[in-house]
Amino acid sequence: MPSRPASDDPRLGDLSEGDILRAILARTVPASHAVIGPGDDAAVIAAPSGSVVATTDTLVHGPDFRLAWSSGYDLGWKAAAVNLADVAAMGARPTALLVALAVPRDLRLSFVEQLADGFREACGALAPGCAVVGGDLTVSDVLTVAVTALGDLEGRSAVTRAGARAGDAVAIAGELGDAARGLAVLFGRFRDGETPVPVDPTRLGSGERSALVAQLRPSPPIGLGPVAATAGATAMMDVSDGLALDARRLAAASDATIALDGAALGDDPERALAGGEDHALLATFPSGVLPPGFRRIGEVRPRAEDDLLLDGRPVDVSGWDPYRDWDSAAG
Amino acid sequence: MPSRPASDDPRLGDLSEGDILRAILARTVPASHAVIGPGDDAAVIAAPSGSVVATTDTLVHGPDFRLAWSSGYDLGWKAAAVNLADVAAMGARPTALLVALAVPRDLRLSFVEQLADGFREACGALAPGCAVVGGDLTVSDVLTVAVTALGDLEGRSAVTRAGARAGDAVAIAGELGDAARGLAVLFGRFRDGETPVPVDPTRLGSGERSALVAQLRPSPPIGLGPVAATAGATAMMDVSDGLALDARRLAAASDATIALDGAALGDDPERALAGGEDHALLATFPSGVLPPGFRRIGEVRPRAEDDLLLDGRPVDVSGWDPYRDWDSAAG
Repeated sequence: MPSRPASDDPRLGDLSEGDILRAILARTVPASHAVIGPGDDAAVIAAPSGSVVATTDTLVHGPDFRLAWSSGYDLGWKAAAVNLADVAAMGARPTALLVALAVPRDLRLSFVEQLADGFREACGALAPGCAVVGGDLTVSDVLTVAVTALGDLEGRSAVTRAGARAGDAVAIAGELGDAARGLAVLFGRFRDGETPVPVDPTRLGSGERSALVAQLRPSPPIGLGPVAATAGATAMMDVSDGLALDARRLAAASDATIALDGAALGDDPERALAGGEDHALLATFPSGVLPPGFRRIGEVRPRAEDDLLLDGRPVDVSGWDPYRDWDSAAG
Repeated sequence: MPSRPASDDPRLGDLSEGDILRAILARTVPASHAVIGPGDDAAVIAAPSGSVVATTDTLVHGPDFRLAWSSGYDLGWKAAAVNLADVAAMGARPTALLVALAVPRDLRLSFVEQLADGFREACGALAPGCAVVGGDLTVSDVLTVAVTALGDLEGRSAVTRAGARAGDAVAIAGELGDAARGLAVLFGRFRDGETPVPVDPTRLGSGERSALVAQLRPSPPIGLGPVAATAGATAMMDVSDGLALDARRLAAASDATIALDGAALGDDPERALAGGEDHALLATFPSGVLPPGFRRIGEVRPRAEDDLLLDGRPVDVSGWDPYRDWDSAAG
């Protein structure tokens, strides 16, 4: 849909909640599984498996994104993608999103419309049939997008982090380290002192541009979650805090050690291990099983002193902790 | 559980995400319907009806609560209650909550622990078997609690806002106007200029105290949602923005007019009509049906020029719009 012209782009504080919701709903498509969609006290979504997978993840202006760097479209896309990835990581197919939006009064209507576009198009591209079925709109000085994603297991068992067994192959689907590289480009190239400034794509090479897309508008391999579950994945998780930290979590939950092969981690193994926000799928498979879209990066071993090894040696790279790493710079 | 002593009450910014989550999870009980609870990428909740009811509602510091007036326990209780009410208003039984928490770094751990206690005890009191099954923790300068509630229809059809028919009785379960009276007590008695100050209960009469509880720690009649659905409610909704505005919404969705009986609205019909945040259940029933817990307050008529009448006359009381009414005072 076309963007709103600047001459007709009111601030949200000058509109009623109903006005804003109407503008958002005009850009929302029905979810295939929605029995009752937006507009009532709650939505009703089909859960044909007799269970529902549910997860929630929030993006907060400051620690999670900056308006100088992310458009409304980027923000909606990313908020959808990171939640869809958590559903996929259980082996489920995403069916619906609920979006709780807290917006500053001086934000423009067009921003929220673009946000709705980003949600719609991310769902269309990454999880066809899934869409926003409900939400909530409130005011806040800090722009906050809290999303809940629901999914259906289609008769499969959920794939948790706890099922990896010695002898399983460790595999990954999706990229490692690109999102972190994109963040480094933003912090390194598009700040004036501490203040983020808009991205000028003409200053970027093609590798930097694709890293930026991985950071701002990620495309995790959502459809491969159900593929992995069907193939017999013994454990699976979304890599959001860096492969090192997340592989350790999977190893701990499974009471095993994960031994990674550095040569399988690309040109920059350290970035692949430490970089957060990739939303790749980390899975373990019985020996001899490797579904299309996954590549082998190591193996599961019996639990040893160290829960994570790289080429046989303990790994001292840690991951991303939003508490420790947050700075409250504006922008 | 006992509160954390002041000498051992760190600020959240001095803790890791894992530390904080462990403290919260220690105060969380399993949900009856949870197949997989907190700790994996997503929770899995039983949906025995083959569908799931889902709703989201957010409380933001400033427009929705003030730390000077609400304890962590109050905030957790209210955030649970308002979401449970939306599930109940579809005729469903709440099964699970997901909580996305954005917290300032200088908030104390004990506050978050009390918040978890409030969630647990509100679920226990209002919707036994329902509990927090998942969540997300991030940092923000504005304390924000975004909750998603899930529910099961137990084989019933969902009760929307759209089914009221001329001749139906209009009925309410729960209180009208008490929460607004409580807010008036807070604004009128517990501010220093524009700044909220802590509540001194010794300055309050018993009516004021119960109004304050209705505002800070509401107890909507969650169990009566399924009761109404079983009894054959033709339409139902949660009264969150005042009876006048919400009854108009139900009338519009049903293409009908709602005629209220002023004598049934208590001592202060204007407050009952205008006051928000009651979370009473407004329902319509076929003539002659009125399940226990509901009281008749009017009738449904064929759609006329005015969609809402009080004692036969148009109603000019409007409801609560958080955009229009928000002031950004701190406290």
